[in-house]
Amino acid sequence: MQVLNPLAIELNEQLCDAAPAVFALLSELGKRVYLPKGILSQTAEANTKAHRFNATRAIALDFSQDAGDMMHLSVSRELVPELTLESIYGYAPVLGQQALRAAWKAQLLRENPALAGKTFSLPIVTSGMTHGFSLLAELFVDSGDPLVLPDKIWGNYRLIFQTKAGANIQSYPFFNASNGFNTRGFRETLANATAEKLLILLNFPHNPTGYAITRVEAQQIVDAIVTRAEAGCHILVMIDDAYAGLWYDASVMQESLFGLLVARHPNIVSVKIDGATKEEYAWGLRVAFMTFGLEETVMHPLAEKLSGLIRANTSGASQVSQTLILEAMKAPGYAEQKQRNYETLKARALKVKAVASDAKYAEFWEVYPSHAGYFTCLNLKSGNAETVRQRLLEAYGIGTIALGETELRVAYACLDVSDIETVFAAIAGVIEAL
Amino acid sequence: MQVLNPLAIELNEQLCDAAPAVFALLSELGKRVYLPKGILSQTAEANTKAHRFNATRAIALDFSQDAGDMMHLSVSRELVPELTLESIYGYAPVLGQQALRAAWKAQLLRENPALAGKTFSLPIVTSGMTHGFSLLAELFVDSGDPLVLPDKIWGNYRLIFQTKAGANIQSYPFFNASNGFNTRGFRETLANATAEKLLILLNFPHNPTGYAITRVEAQQIVDAIVTRAEAGCHILVMIDDAYAGLWYDASVMQESLFGLLVARHPNIVSVKIDGATKEEYAWGLRVAFMTFGLEETVMHPLAEKLSGLIRANTSGASQVSQTLILEAMKAPGYAEQKQRNYETLKARALKVKAVASDAKYAEFWEVYPSHAGYFTCLNLKSGNAETVRQRLLEAYGIGTIALGETELRVAYACLDVSDIETVFAAIAGVIEAL
Repeated sequence: MQVLNPLAIELNEQLCDAAPAVFALLSELGKRVYLPKGILSQTAEANTKAHRFNATRAIALDFSQDAGDMMHLSVSRELVPELTLESIYGYAPVLGQQALRAAWKAQLLRENPALAGKTFSLPIVTSGMTHGFSLLAELFVDSGDPLVLPDKIWGNYRLIFQTKAGANIQSYPFFNASNGFNTRGFRETLANATAEKLLILLNFPHNPTGYAITRVEAQQIVDAIVTRAEAGCHILVMIDDAYAGLWYDASVMQESLFGLLVARHPNIVSVKIDGATKEEYAWGLRVAFMTFGLEETVMHPLAEKLSGLIRANTSGASQVSQTLILEAMKAPGYAEQKQRNYETLKARALKVKAVASDAKYAEFWEVYPSHAGYFTCLNLKSGNAETVRQRLLEAYGIGTIALGETELRVAYACLDVSDIETVFAAIAGVIEAL
Repeated sequence: MQVLNPLAIELNEQLCDAAPAVFALLSELGKRVYLPKGILSQTAEANTKAHRFNATRAIALDFSQDAGDMMHLSVSRELVPELTLESIYGYAPVLGQQALRAAWKAQLLRENPALAGKTFSLPIVTSGMTHGFSLLAELFVDSGDPLVLPDKIWGNYRLIFQTKAGANIQSYPFFNASNGFNTRGFRETLANATAEKLLILLNFPHNPTGYAITRVEAQQIVDAIVTRAEAGCHILVMIDDAYAGLWYDASVMQESLFGLLVARHPNIVSVKIDGATKEEYAWGLRVAFMTFGLEETVMHPLAEKLSGLIRANTSGASQVSQTLILEAMKAPGYAEQKQRNYETLKARALKVKAVASDAKYAEFWEVYPSHAGYFTCLNLKSGNAETVRQRLLEAYGIGTIALGETELRVAYACLDVSDIETVFAAIAGVIEAL
């Protein structure tokens, strides 16, 4: 057991005072981490006050043109001709560019009516969504802590939370008997988890199925969580909104569950993990966000702890990546271009729904309900998914993802609408020939 | 204690067979981590074989122009007009772009004569140098493990290795009585560390002083490490080469200590952490490298474990950042532009040396020997460093970094050569007026 640094003790006391339920959720690492004063804080001070010479920063300046451009290589700079040197090569703030964080918050408010009038944090920039989960695992998960997850998930949750952080996964079937979200199984799993600390991760639009919840299901989920919170359980609810905005079906809820959880109960800490990654068509830029349903007095010490964790991990996300996202969001054509991409994906989703659910394929597979995102997922009635995947690849040159024994994930976001019939016919052909 | 996954067991057995000393260095997390088969491996297979339709990737393609460009927002893409869509927005491989890794290895060979003919790994791309240290801490450090560090260091080592990973820091004075590197203190600290596992971190050119070692000192350091290795100690030597290449003094060794440690003894695992960050004037791009002095049979399982750690943390570094580094390295003007920046910094370093060491300042400070990098560091003979820093900022608008009670770090990389006299005169003025 390490002796806590006085700065960590101070942050812990602030958290205890402002929100004991948040403090109760911290991991051992979460309790001892803090952002040291030192080079970062002295540099920040100098950035404001050093009006003549700033010799704090571990960068290099070039004075050949004017008063201190960033030193750089033109062969690199010429590839990003429109952006300022600082917005490409400068160190980004540990928690991300302030303007980008503000722009993302404004977008969350526009796209989530349930957030209107509610208090939630400025989004924190992470180096991709995986990084957000990784930081949450460090801040909140000790070995053995229970984490409630459905049986159908993005596999990387297991690596992050189970293998690395040691969480004890409590699983429930994602679908109920009528292929809706299994709110009853979810509620029962929560009821059976008797620990005083509970971690929950929910993901709609869902990977791998593309399922999205209705307002009724959303309310049932919230009620189940509130019931446990009222019984004294401290709960962290992580909302994976990777595919937010990509809803194609009018019957499902077209906003994040996060908005329904914010300020719902003092024992519930909700955090929304979303990203430029899928929503902004910017996968490799590695820019995502983490937004807490917490007010400023609670968020301040928590953000200091997250600053410490980021400073000890990546020290911040790529500046040029953040700039590319922000500049796009500010540009006149932004909303229109996003809408056009959305329409393209929606047309494919509707086509997939019609084709994959055709009665002629009913003997080969069941299609899980899919309303949103990039994927559809087939539950094969015969044949092993991995065998089908390999045959499809070898005989037809078609790539799909096998999940477990019977499931095949098809990323229709990668398929031209005119090829969708061909792809599903090929899958049926492979299964039939087995 | 978690049950190990069969894939982790397999990697551990490979390591035990190929290099028991490497296995002995692994942390508990290092022992249990692995890269799951699944979406990543199936996608990799499809990228090779899915010649018709690849519906594996969690990206979106646009077929309006031709056969499957990446879907994107033009308002973003227009800012990087010369690069391909894949090289901006595509997911980079977990360990980094293959071509960039190869280019960096070739550069290491060119710049480090001692590496000629030796076997060392392909560099692994990390999201900045901090990220490299963070990954090494996860792979190799358990709470309580001894880490040998000098008393003058980049402060972030403490946050990464001590606060977060729980390492037990064994400190020695950086300088000896004649202001050379304290090889004797280093050797004695190693001799006194009786654990069977030892972590060592060395950093030349040195932050904060700018000190670089001579060939004689380098040999003494290597000898001290080999002596402990011969006594049966398993040793991880981390070489922080953030400022490699920026040597301005002919009397110091102009290459990395890493080259002298590779293949020196089976109980020594050496790893070079360096970056595009400072060497390539690309601070905010967050691209750095981690290179192991290990042969392929050992490196393969270790790289799989690092892939697992990265996949559970950031999932890979920014694609556009990596592309900007690689394209610059391939461009015709690259070497010349780097040389020009080097000459500019060297002129400042020599000016700083002349000015700061002027006899008229001898009553105010001692200048630590500085041969390389971005910084010089003053050891004040009177006055508190933090007080001096604040007065400099308030009265002169000059930003510096206070370290401990008496040290002031000046980043001359941020100063025009013509302002250097003014800056040191101001520092002297502040101290005199205290």
